[in-house]
Amino acid sequence: MDAPAKDHPARSRIENMRGMAPDERRAAVCTAAALDAADATVLAGADVLPLQLADGMIENVVGKFELPLGVATNFVVNGKDYLVPMAVEEPSVVAAASYMAKLVAKDGGFRARADRPIMRAQIQVLGLTDPFGAKQRLFEHRDELIAKANSRDKVLIGLGGGCKDIEVHIFEDTPVGAMLVLHILVDVRDAMGANTVNTMAEMLAPDVERITGGQVRLRILSNLADLRVVRARVELDPATLDTASLKGTDVCRGIVEACALAIIDPYRAATHNKGIMNGIDPVVVATGNDWRAIEAGAHSYAARGGRYTSLTRWEMSAAGKLVGTIELPMALGLVGGATKTHPAAQAALRLLGVQSAGELAEVVASVGLAQNMAAIRALATEGIQRGHMALHARNIAIVAGASGADVDRIARALVASGDVSVDKARALIAG
Amino acid sequence: MDAPAKDHPARSRIENMRGMAPDERRAAVCTAAALDAADATVLAGADVLPLQLADGMIENVVGKFELPLGVATNFVVNGKDYLVPMAVEEPSVVAAASYMAKLVAKDGGFRARADRPIMRAQIQVLGLTDPFGAKQRLFEHRDELIAKANSRDKVLIGLGGGCKDIEVHIFEDTPVGAMLVLHILVDVRDAMGANTVNTMAEMLAPDVERITGGQVRLRILSNLADLRVVRARVELDPATLDTASLKGTDVCRGIVEACALAIIDPYRAATHNKGIMNGIDPVVVATGNDWRAIEAGAHSYAARGGRYTSLTRWEMSAAGKLVGTIELPMALGLVGGATKTHPAAQAALRLLGVQSAGELAEVVASVGLAQNMAAIRALATEGIQRGHMALHARNIAIVAGASGADVDRIARALVASGDVSVDKARALIAG
Repeated sequence: MDAPAKDHPARSRIENMRGMAPDERRAAVCTAAALDAADATVLAGADVLPLQLADGMIENVVGKFELPLGVATNFVVNGKDYLVPMAVEEPSVVAAASYMAKLVAKDGGFRARADRPIMRAQIQVLGLTDPFGAKQRLFEHRDELIAKANSRDKVLIGLGGGCKDIEVHIFEDTPVGAMLVLHILVDVRDAMGANTVNTMAEMLAPDVERITGGQVRLRILSNLADLRVVRARVELDPATLDTASLKGTDVCRGIVEACALAIIDPYRAATHNKGIMNGIDPVVVATGNDWRAIEAGAHSYAARGGRYTSLTRWEMSAAGKLVGTIELPMALGLVGGATKTHPAAQAALRLLGVQSAGELAEVVASVGLAQNMAAIRALATEGIQRGHMALHARNIAIVAGASGADVDRIARALVASGDVSVDKARALIAG
Repeated sequence: MDAPAKDHPARSRIENMRGMAPDERRAAVCTAAALDAADATVLAGADVLPLQLADGMIENVVGKFELPLGVATNFVVNGKDYLVPMAVEEPSVVAAASYMAKLVAKDGGFRARADRPIMRAQIQVLGLTDPFGAKQRLFEHRDELIAKANSRDKVLIGLGGGCKDIEVHIFEDTPVGAMLVLHILVDVRDAMGANTVNTMAEMLAPDVERITGGQVRLRILSNLADLRVVRARVELDPATLDTASLKGTDVCRGIVEACALAIIDPYRAATHNKGIMNGIDPVVVATGNDWRAIEAGAHSYAARGGRYTSLTRWEMSAAGKLVGTIELPMALGLVGGATKTHPAAQAALRLLGVQSAGELAEVVASVGLAQNMAAIRALATEGIQRGHMALHARNIAIVAGASGADVDRIARALVASGDVSVDKARALIAG
């Protein structure tokens, strides 16, 4: 048993979590994170989002859709312990993240750094015969444009946020003539930032038309948030990766060789990055954030060099350590949207114990790196099926009617038989 | 009132859906789709996923996370009416899809075609000094490899599925030497297919090592499912897009010009495609499918030409019609995984009334195209804020404590005031 981290009441390790029933796990997690009974009820999730509240969030509401909520353990990021809520339907994701985090914790945990929360908004200008001249005129009015953008949201400015700079991008030759795109770069602090930057872009449109002499069309944020990148790193002693049948150095080599394919081959990179998002999205969903925004940012960033490639890199350091790194945009908010309105998202944030959107981004990137490590470690060594099928088999056993302690017994028998099917499970139950 | 489509009891239009309470909407939807009381209860979603079932789906389960479930109306795809379940936290998505589908329905609806459900799995081979020789040897054993892949899953073969062909990709120069990657191309019928193709790739590994003389490492599906593409198309009379203040021809021009930027500029393409996924993912989630897989496929496909670009195109035909098209991978299943185990996913599929994974893909692609049309139509004309802020304002009003009929009243006052904030909402409620 480790001592609790000093700066946070949550303990990232919970003994025998796997063997507990969901109610016992929830109690253990809430105790570790010092959450009260109200939060425990909300995390249980049995009809805690009132239908009236759901009705205010989106349109044509008829009900709610429930995703299983798991908690990944063992995460130590920048020396702080985290219990990580994950809402997802796919087996093995939460177990894999927790297991990798346990290995990483042995060797010092994750180191992560989030950029300042700078979002881009785009203002598209058409009808220009002199786009380069218009670009210069916009830069001549830079201070005026920034001041105008910052004239309304006093709260954001008071927090140190606001529009910080502009960029001008020109596309000389398009099917609809030359296009100029003004980017405004806005520090959105602890918000995801879409409403903030969209409002600023709307406000500037008349000035941009006046200055350029063109017509403004689109005015909206870019999800390719390449100024709001988060980076995380792990460094592992090869011995940490020893298994019963393989030396850690061989496992490291397999991981590096697996990553090599993801770097050069988009067919592999898509799946490699999908595995990363298996870790990231469930935390994004559980905290009420917009997973489509995070996905669009991640994958478009993976394509920024002209070839769609891996969001992680795995290398061997000169000192013989396995070094894993991840880098991707991470536009997450702690305030606003469903994060604010959804009671379970609020409880999830209290479970995490993060104090800023940047800290949340650092934890989420670490979960993505852990998930990637789990996937390529499994693929490179034992093959994905052995581990995945064992968990898939539990699912099949339940579908076939198994319950209680029988679920694990039937699942094990299915895997041993090599026939993980509902029919086989029914036969085993009947037999 | 339209007559019901002949081949399906669901009616895609429901009068005054927006003005109903959630319980009334659910009743209307279930009547239109001929769903029974049990399905109605499941769609309501108040604790319908038993904790024990959730516990069998993923690990370390402590509870469930509820997403609002809305139903998009007016979808007519290939002449058939659909009511579309959408699980999502973002305002305006369901309303926008429904409204665009209504416009499209006037002009004949969506036409969509899904490819055969061919998934790729990759088998990575290292340690080859003669990768091109190995490639030839694999092709010499093509029939034997296909037969071996098809030797186990008799059910799939009986349904007309199974491994159909192989490809061999070579990367001559990588940091870990030459790499050969065998692709197996598998018709997975109505499954998403991950378990099927992963199992086949595992099975073939020893043969691939024997034939090539190399060492097999990764063996896993590719989410860049570029042989399982779905395409959808709409064709609109410009007059259909007339608004109170704008001619339809001008709206069409704005849409084409907005798309032009998404085609050439990755900063815009990321957000353009994010809007598409706003439509697609909520249906993927509601049907128990894997949204990370669909996201990875879509965005990596958007980068396939070397520049990350739009998944849709908007053009004017020679006959003066606005033509919108979408094309992206769509690896969805009707069987297996959470689609099978989650009671609400089953009810969502009955609400949709789809008969095959391909039909589901056609509806989902149509929703993505509708969502894209809504976004760029709004952006190109009135700016996104006016519409979006009105819905955002309802959210803010609820957070500030408004309830019942007050929600709409306060939301309207917030938008009119130009200050959509919780403080302003509280002042309005108090005042």
